Amino acid sequence: MAKNINIGMIGYGFMARTHSNAHRKVNNFFDLEYRPVLKTVCGLVEAEAKAFADKWGYESYTTDWKKVVEDKNIDLIEICVPNNMHAQIALAAANAGKMIICEKPLALNVAQAKEMVDAVEKAKVANLVSFNYRRVPAVTLAKQLIDQGRLGRIFHYRANFLQDWTISTDVPQGGMATWRLDVKAAGSGVTGDLLAHCIDTAIWQNGSIKCVNAMTETFIKERKNVETGKVEPVGIDDACTFFCRFDNGSLGNFESTRYARGHKALYTFEINGEKASIRWDLHDLHRLQYFDHRDEGIIRGWRSIHVSDGDQPYMKKWWVPGLQIGYEHSFVHQIADFLEGLATGKPARPTFRDALETQKVCEAVLTSAKTSQWVNIPS
Amino acid sequence: MAKNINIGMIGYGFMARTHSNAHRKVNNFFDLEYRPVLKTVCGLVEAEAKAFADKWGYESYTTDWKKVVEDKNIDLIEICVPNNMHAQIALAAANAGKMIICEKPLALNVAQAKEMVDAVEKAKVANLVSFNYRRVPAVTLAKQLIDQGRLGRIFHYRANFLQDWTISTDVPQGGMATWRLDVKAAGSGVTGDLLAHCIDTAIWQNGSIKCVNAMTETFIKERKNVETGKVEPVGIDDACTFFCRFDNGSLGNFESTRYARGHKALYTFEINGEKASIRWDLHDLHRLQYFDHRDEGIIRGWRSIHVSDGDQPYMKKWWVPGLQIGYEHSFVHQIADFLEGLATGKPARPTFRDALETQKVCEAVLTSAKTSQWVNIPS
Amino acid sequence: MAKNINIGMIGYGFMARTHSNAHRKVNNFFDLEYRPVLKTVCGLVEAEAKAFADKWGYESYTTDWKKVVEDKNIDLIEICVPNNMHAQIALAAANAGKMIICEKPLALNVAQAKEMVDAVEKAKVANLVSFNYRRVPAVTLAKQLIDQGRLGRIFHYRANFLQDWTISTDVPQGGMATWRLDVKAAGSGVTGDLLAHCIDTAIWQNGSIKCVNAMTETFIKERKNVETGKVEPVGIDDACTFFCRFDNGSLGNFESTRYARGHKALYTFEINGEKASIRWDLHDLHRLQYFDHRDEGIIRGWRSIHVSDGDQPYMKKWWVPGLQIGYEHSFVHQIADFLEGLATGKPARPTFRDALETQKVCEAVLTSAKTSQWVNIPS
Amino acid sequence: MAKNINIGMIGYGFMARTHSNAHRKVNNFFDLEYRPVLKTVCGLVEAEAKAFADKWGYESYTTDWKKVVEDKNIDLIEICVPNNMHAQIALAAANAGKMIICEKPLALNVAQAKEMVDAVEKAKVANLVSFNYRRVPAVTLAKQLIDQGRLGRIFHYRANFLQDWTISTDVPQGGMATWRLDVKAAGSGVTGDLLAHCIDTAIWQNGSIKCVNAMTETFIKERKNVETGKVEPVGIDDACTFFCRFDNGSLGNFESTRYARGHKALYTFEINGEKASIRWDLHDLHRLQYFDHRDEGIIRGWRSIHVSDGDQPYMKKWWVPGLQIGYEHSFVHQIADFLEGLATGKPARPTFRDALETQKVCEAVLTSAKTSQWVNIPS
Repeated sequence: MAKNINIGMIGYGFMARTHSNAHRKVNNFFDLEYRPVLKTVCGLVEAEAKAFADKWGYESYTTDWKKVVEDKNIDLIEICVPNNMHAQIALAAANAGKMIICEKPLALNVAQAKEMVDAVEKAKVANLVSFNYRRVPAVTLAKQLIDQGRLGRIFHYRANFLQDWTISTDVPQGGMATWRLDVKAAGSGVTGDLLAHCIDTAIWQNGSIKCVNAMTETFIKERKNVETGKVEPVGIDDACTFFCRFDNGSLGNFESTRYARGHKALYTFEINGEKASIRWDLHDLHRLQYFDHRDEGIIRGWRSIHVSDGDQPYMKKWWVPGLQIGYEHSFVHQIADFLEGLATGKPARPTFRDALETQKVCEAVLTSAKTSQWVNIPS
Repeated sequence: MAKNINIGMIGYGFMARTHSNAHRKVNNFFDLEYRPVLKTVCGLVEAEAKAFADKWGYESYTTDWKKVVEDKNIDLIEICVPNNMHAQIALAAANAGKMIICEKPLALNVAQAKEMVDAVEKAKVANLVSFNYRRVPAVTLAKQLIDQGRLGRIFHYRANFLQDWTISTDVPQGGMATWRLDVKAAGSGVTGDLLAHCIDTAIWQNGSIKCVNAMTETFIKERKNVETGKVEPVGIDDACTFFCRFDNGSLGNFESTRYARGHKALYTFEINGEKASIRWDLHDLHRLQYFDHRDEGIIRGWRSIHVSDGDQPYMKKWWVPGLQIGYEHSFVHQIADFLEGLATGKPARPTFRDALETQKVCEAVLTSAKTSQWVNIPS
Repeated sequence: MAKNINIGMIGYGFMARTHSNAHRKVNNFFDLEYRPVLKTVCGLVEAEAKAFADKWGYESYTTDWKKVVEDKNIDLIEICVPNNMHAQIALAAANAGKMIICEKPLALNVAQAKEMVDAVEKAKVANLVSFNYRRVPAVTLAKQLIDQGRLGRIFHYRANFLQDWTISTDVPQGGMATWRLDVKAAGSGVTGDLLAHCIDTAIWQNGSIKCVNAMTETFIKERKNVETGKVEPVGIDDACTFFCRFDNGSLGNFESTRYARGHKALYTFEINGEKASIRWDLHDLHRLQYFDHRDEGIIRGWRSIHVSDGDQPYMKKWWVPGLQIGYEHSFVHQIADFLEGLATGKPARPTFRDALETQKVCEAVLTSAKTSQWVNIPS
Repeated sequence: MAKNINIGMIGYGFMARTHSNAHRKVNNFFDLEYRPVLKTVCGLVEAEAKAFADKWGYESYTTDWKKVVEDKNIDLIEICVPNNMHAQIALAAANAGKMIICEKPLALNVAQAKEMVDAVEKAKVANLVSFNYRRVPAVTLAKQLIDQGRLGRIFHYRANFLQDWTISTDVPQGGMATWRLDVKAAGSGVTGDLLAHCIDTAIWQNGSIKCVNAMTETFIKERKNVETGKVEPVGIDDACTFFCRFDNGSLGNFESTRYARGHKALYTFEINGEKASIRWDLHDLHRLQYFDHRDEGIIRGWRSIHVSDGDQPYMKKWWVPGLQIGYEHSFVHQIADFLEGLATGKPARPTFRDALETQKVCEAVLTSAKTSQWVNIPS
């Protein structure tokens, strides 16, 4: 019989749903030594916490996250709250000896992130940051192809994360639904929210980034704050573009915005190697585009790989070839790998330490944009 | 609190997984008066039935489907077994006053199907046939656009269902994994398995079919039967093409095969109306292609609609715009609609009676292929 | 120095433009022993014939095609007029010992076509029917891949030719611009105009067709005739669907219509072989889709081949990789091959005899639709 | 009758072919007051100049460009030679009172470009720089949509020009075929060759660029020079990325490389406006992607516009809807517009003065890459 892992979920918003769903499904599809049990959920408004608990089958609910962290029955703390709450919860959870899965970005800044890394490493608790897109099967397949050396020397890495949901001046900042536009809660705009995903994937696939040069812009300068009821300056970056150099000599070009009309959540990357290239985009997440120069000349072309076969990452666990899975499955894969890591002693990644590297790049990007200078990533 | 609906699952194969998953998820995402409870699962091999029960959280398991049908604690019988078992289980379940959800095609032939319709209607039990593709959001959206009259007079309906998994002569017939190639278990080949889906959707979207003209082929004439261990003639249709006339005056063209190299499960349809056209394919199931002639001329073109917004069918229940769902969600929608139908008294469709119409077309198609003649669909 | 071939162009409409353009360009791009010279153009209305001659650099013009055919200075007669004029001009030209390039379809019916074949073969004059799509580089590449045996045993051939320009009841029949809707001038509707292309390509790529079963429809029953000024019955087929069996055992499915809203000229074909499949469509004519099952499993997918490299058919003659050519170039390739055939004594195809086979299939298709029966193609 | 414009073509390479073809075709398709006459062609190697003259129908040939410039019978000088020759030929031609069409980039640097502008303006001769991509119909349509205000406030402009033809170390520098890799002949690498196109289109569509920040790289440091026979340092930029700010407040992101495996000539741009967005790519040049937020929500999506209708730019001159044209046609449109400009007195653009602005941006980009600083574009 599988061993139970009791979950204490901090947050009941969008990310709490994706994680709860993953916990509920993972053992139906993966053969694992461990089984998550939805023990308690915590959130600010009691009625909503209760409703969430009912909906997802949590055994209890509370409005005090400290109680959850201190609860001896809880094995794993899930941090699914705004970014400015990550550090304090994580530090307390580590001190209490709990395993932690933290939503991205890890922290508001590098200083906080370092403290968090120190805490979990000192406490020797299993820890993971939820950069879920690594575990979309097509993205994992891309990583495999790179690791197999199929691309040869890498020349270019290009990633975009384009959205369009904040173009209207009517979108407010602050509050439950729009804290991502409030710099106090979010720390930054697209850099921490969207580029952090791109950077995590890029470092994982292509190695460390050496230096960055960035430009940011805030197109709409003032928005109503739903907490204060007042129109206040917008402190986040609405858009951020940067180029960079990787340690392996390749060039990077990254861009994110929430003002790209027509793109709901278009995360794309493309990697150009000497021998082969890869492309992917989140709007058709089950497909990987692959070009191999070693293919015979007259029939050479970009292949559209429908990643749904049993020999492709994670797909043997699901349905049959041709039948696609969706966004939520990346979270199922994440918890499956995390639990597998507990069993094997080979932790799933990115750990807090891995995520610290992404945090450093994000901070360097914001510094570069502010100073109009190249900025090196500290090691 | 939601009222429990106790599920008796007959079968533990691929379809039993999709249905079990739907039952487990539906109340996490939909607000419903009823809640399915995974009570018991039934299958031929006890160890496998037990393993399935463990994996999915069924409270018990058995190898005798009659016990499940007779069990007073069971409210709803799920028929997820080969086609030649549908009728007897459905008749017994109806007689026992159980609700029934039956996998498609409803029966081996029209005669059986009629008996089943009579039984559920006499017993007045809720009944549904699992033509799940109706409930892919993009397909449901297509239906809405048609019902709103956006297409105007319909000229053409075109559907294909193309696979390539039986091209090798090494694929056997019979047994658990390949009963679809055994005419005794399946009744027919692609006609009942794949074209039935196309026909169900077509009738739903475009109204009744008046007459058909078909051609079938069995490319590989003999295959080993895994049950008998002998090489035996193949009795199913490997491929089937038919054209037809709909009651509304439009022309239909349908094709299905398991010999279309490169297509894993490419179900596509296209509808050409006087004012607008629609296209869809299962390999990118979250997209709907839409062309509207009323668009201004210089910017007229096929629109690729990424069906993931809250105002599109079912999508408000899931994530945020741009984040796609997959194949399995069509089954969640199916059970959600079924349960909603129980609550409102407006039954979800297709009912057994609806599916009888599809059965009639399938039978006419096979008759036409055999006789090389046009065949009318009896009313 | 290249030897001159003096061209007598019969017709000054759309096809006369494509052919004239091809004659003017061919020697700029191809190294050939022969060079077409635009000698004279013939058409009904003198002013228009003159304007055409001025525009394209013809040395003279006339309104009497018989003069052209009898002119001793003319080497090659181009027949670019409505279908009901093909036979008489071709017979006269053959009798006068002229080479002939005839627009498709060859004739109004098989009887006429046979006479024309006899005439050119008796006269031993070079002859070609302008099924130009064979010479789109991607289509020619498809043929090469098939001839190299890459697809293995063929199971399916599928072709569509979809247009939408006659949906309005305001489109008339007859006259210069809309003779294709007048059965007297055109002989048939989509069958001769569009399916003839599909059938020509199919036979070329996949061998002879054994028998056909067809359905036709005329959606708009009456249209104004611009010649008589009266509303008259429409005698052509607006839409035609047929399936068939090829000599090689594969199944064919063909459809054409002028009522497919959203498709201007969407000629597509797909061939499914045991080992590989091919797809093409005219709306992106420079691309060939290719799936090869022998590709390694995890990176298998449809390749989108941008047919613009020097080692792909005809492309060395044009620009550089990545830069596409268009529709008109298929006619340049046609005349290049025709002239090359004169030089080598290995005639370019399809000859009149080749086109007779397509004519037989077209006629069988129309007969089948009329009789609601399978019809065999006579040898 | 059309008035003749006598052409003196300097160069017989790739660009000389595209221009010669345009001259030969333009009056067949466009109704114009002027008609180009291919008078003389000039190139370094006499035999090749003669062969070119024969192939294209030039009346004469020479190896001395000064003779062409001084020839009283010549009206228009076409400069289709390496970049380091542009200035001297253009200055001489202007002094001789000739009209000039010059291949891009205008010059090696801003200083040269200014001299050239001064010369043509002083001489009052018609002048044009061959940024041909402006005149691909889909690109021209994009410009129209922008000018009509359909996009609203612009937030982002993104352009890439990706190639892969210099990845091998075997590709040499210098000489006829590979002068683009020799910094002495080309002035720069991808910046002047490819980004110049992107910048020209961007300024035309989105207005002036205020400041730039760039990174360049030379991946292969040494290549054999085919002129000297020695391995020499590579002086050009193999890749260049820059971001920028436009005068209208929008952000730009540009990238070009010849090391993007899988892309032969992938010039793409995307413009994100408040109300609508536009995308285009050269590999499918006849399509424009358009997203309009004002479309009704449930049927909103990117439209794939097949730019081949008569009401779309230039297309009335060619074939019928659905039939695409190719790369070479952009040059036909260019000369058509140039000749039209002569007739109307409203010069076609970009003139030398327009191209000077692009030259300034290119120079600023190279300076920025060298200094690692933002660089303002001088007015």
